[in-house]
Amino acid sequence: MAEQPTLAQVAAAAGVSPATASRVLTGSVRVSTSARRQVHEAISRLGYVRRRAPRGSSPRRSDRLVAAVVCDPIHRVFAEPFYARLLAAIEDALGKNGIATMVMSAAATTVSTVATPLVAGAVSGVLLVGARSGHPLAVTLAASGVPVRCIGRPPDGLEMPFIDVDNADGARQAAEHLLLQGRRHITMIGGSANLPAARQRIDGFRTRLNEAGVHDVPVAYGDFTHASGVHATRWLLQRMPNLDAIFAASDTMAAAAINVLRETGRKVPDDVAVIGFDDVPLARHTRPPLTTVRQPIEDLAAVGVRLLLSGISGSTPDQNPILPAELVVRESA
Amino acid sequence: MAEQPTLAQVAAAAGVSPATASRVLTGSVRVSTSARRQVHEAISRLGYVRRRAPRGSSPRRSDRLVAAVVCDPIHRVFAEPFYARLLAAIEDALGKNGIATMVMSAAATTVSTVATPLVAGAVSGVLLVGARSGHPLAVTLAASGVPVRCIGRPPDGLEMPFIDVDNADGARQAAEHLLLQGRRHITMIGGSANLPAARQRIDGFRTRLNEAGVHDVPVAYGDFTHASGVHATRWLLQRMPNLDAIFAASDTMAAAAINVLRETGRKVPDDVAVIGFDDVPLARHTRPPLTTVRQPIEDLAAVGVRLLLSGISGSTPDQNPILPAELVVRESA
Repeated sequence: MAEQPTLAQVAAAAGVSPATASRVLTGSVRVSTSARRQVHEAISRLGYVRRRAPRGSSPRRSDRLVAAVVCDPIHRVFAEPFYARLLAAIEDALGKNGIATMVMSAAATTVSTVATPLVAGAVSGVLLVGARSGHPLAVTLAASGVPVRCIGRPPDGLEMPFIDVDNADGARQAAEHLLLQGRRHITMIGGSANLPAARQRIDGFRTRLNEAGVHDVPVAYGDFTHASGVHATRWLLQRMPNLDAIFAASDTMAAAAINVLRETGRKVPDDVAVIGFDDVPLARHTRPPLTTVRQPIEDLAAVGVRLLLSGISGSTPDQNPILPAELVVRESA
Repeated sequence: MAEQPTLAQVAAAAGVSPATASRVLTGSVRVSTSARRQVHEAISRLGYVRRRAPRGSSPRRSDRLVAAVVCDPIHRVFAEPFYARLLAAIEDALGKNGIATMVMSAAATTVSTVATPLVAGAVSGVLLVGARSGHPLAVTLAASGVPVRCIGRPPDGLEMPFIDVDNADGARQAAEHLLLQGRRHITMIGGSANLPAARQRIDGFRTRLNEAGVHDVPVAYGDFTHASGVHATRWLLQRMPNLDAIFAASDTMAAAAINVLRETGRKVPDDVAVIGFDDVPLARHTRPPLTTVRQPIEDLAAVGVRLLLSGISGSTPDQNPILPAELVVRESA
């Protein structure tokens, strides 16, 4: 096995001074964006991992505090029911271990502010939620030596332990259900393409439909918000006016699709079947109630917390657990 | 001026050992509930304030991290649009100072878990939101020496710097508006009686109505949730079937009142005028759009952050700012 690269090698590869490379790693704000990007690229390329401070070398003020960090702007954290349920479940699971949860949101623009206390040791570990390609916090944390577990697969190229739901299989079940109903003009509202979970839902859905000989499957990309679900549904109706099914990558976007279909005079499920993803409380309150792919959110939180606590006490996981997703059939499909 | 009481005196007054009193102050979980209560009572009675550690005596890892702690269970933090707007505004105001925000929720049952890292110095300061009488976190923080500013007046008997909105005057404006419309069978849905802001809204509303000769003003108590607004409205309709106005202490409860009134065949505002409190986004989306008392939430956050940052750098405020509330007239009254 090759020797671990040093910080000096990272700095040299990035073309910056060792002091600058160090400031990037400690989350200092006094680094230009371009220098930060170069250092992160060098870290990824060389596979640099910061050595953790030896245990007991400094007062560990943070032993009873874990950060749940959502890689989205704070207004999105409050608007998205999936986050609300997940964060409540994380708080519950940590609380049972006598550990306090702090919730932070990390938009692309606030990453240095958020990263600073995390890499400086304010918490004993981090649960990272919704990390997507190019989000600098994931890179910074991966290199920081702070124990981190991702809820949801980390972006490509980042080796971080994670727990995930079988997104591809959940989407496959949705496709199967629509095929069994005889739907053939099938469309999808996908989530942000830089989020691994969103890509897997699209891939799983398309693969099953292709196997069944359905090859024209238009996908409109939303960003999990209601507004994007409205836009995506309108685009799909233009692209395939005779569509008879919409699979949305979140319940919020599925609820938006139901609203737009009603406005255009289409009946759900008679004219168009709609399936969501998540099974948040909203899914019971749409009209008709939403058929959706249930994520085991409480299990996701509980297992994620268990993995993180093992990580804090020094163990490395053998494998990354993948929890099953399950189609819940209500009335919309 | 009397000498500051010592921790030993607090322990003696509480009838516990100094070690136990110390554990209460540092938020340890290894203290019985009764001992904790006795120590907190002694702290309040004697006016004990913990000496802060002298500056520079230990690594200050937390200089760039502030906690916004909401005294409510986490599912309430996500369900209440007032919190969403306030916390987003706090994050924005702190971010402009390069300081990260961590959001914590402190239900009565999770206080020791939440208090531990806060009093141990994990953060440089705390913004305390929604502190109510008997909530042990407020007492623990007040005694801890950690810089704290309350958003909203602190519970009776606790001397903590705060910023608040003129709740009584906002309620007075609502009463005035209803009187000018000729309403005389006026009712109110109040908030939790142990929350100072809720009491002030009731007092301000009643006082103005009494001045105008309206003395029978039934008040149903909710807890700011939609469900409690439904219950309260039903109770008011039983108590005063000919009511022609409802003033609710939050927009969420006002929206619930509108729903119940519609179900019972009453038109808003023709039969019954409805006024809310907060002016969260929901207020524009009720049918009809909600007349409500606007809280200047962004100012509340910005001034609260400014006060806390002064407190962290050692200064004590001369006074506690009270920001004006303002009636926003839409269609429901």
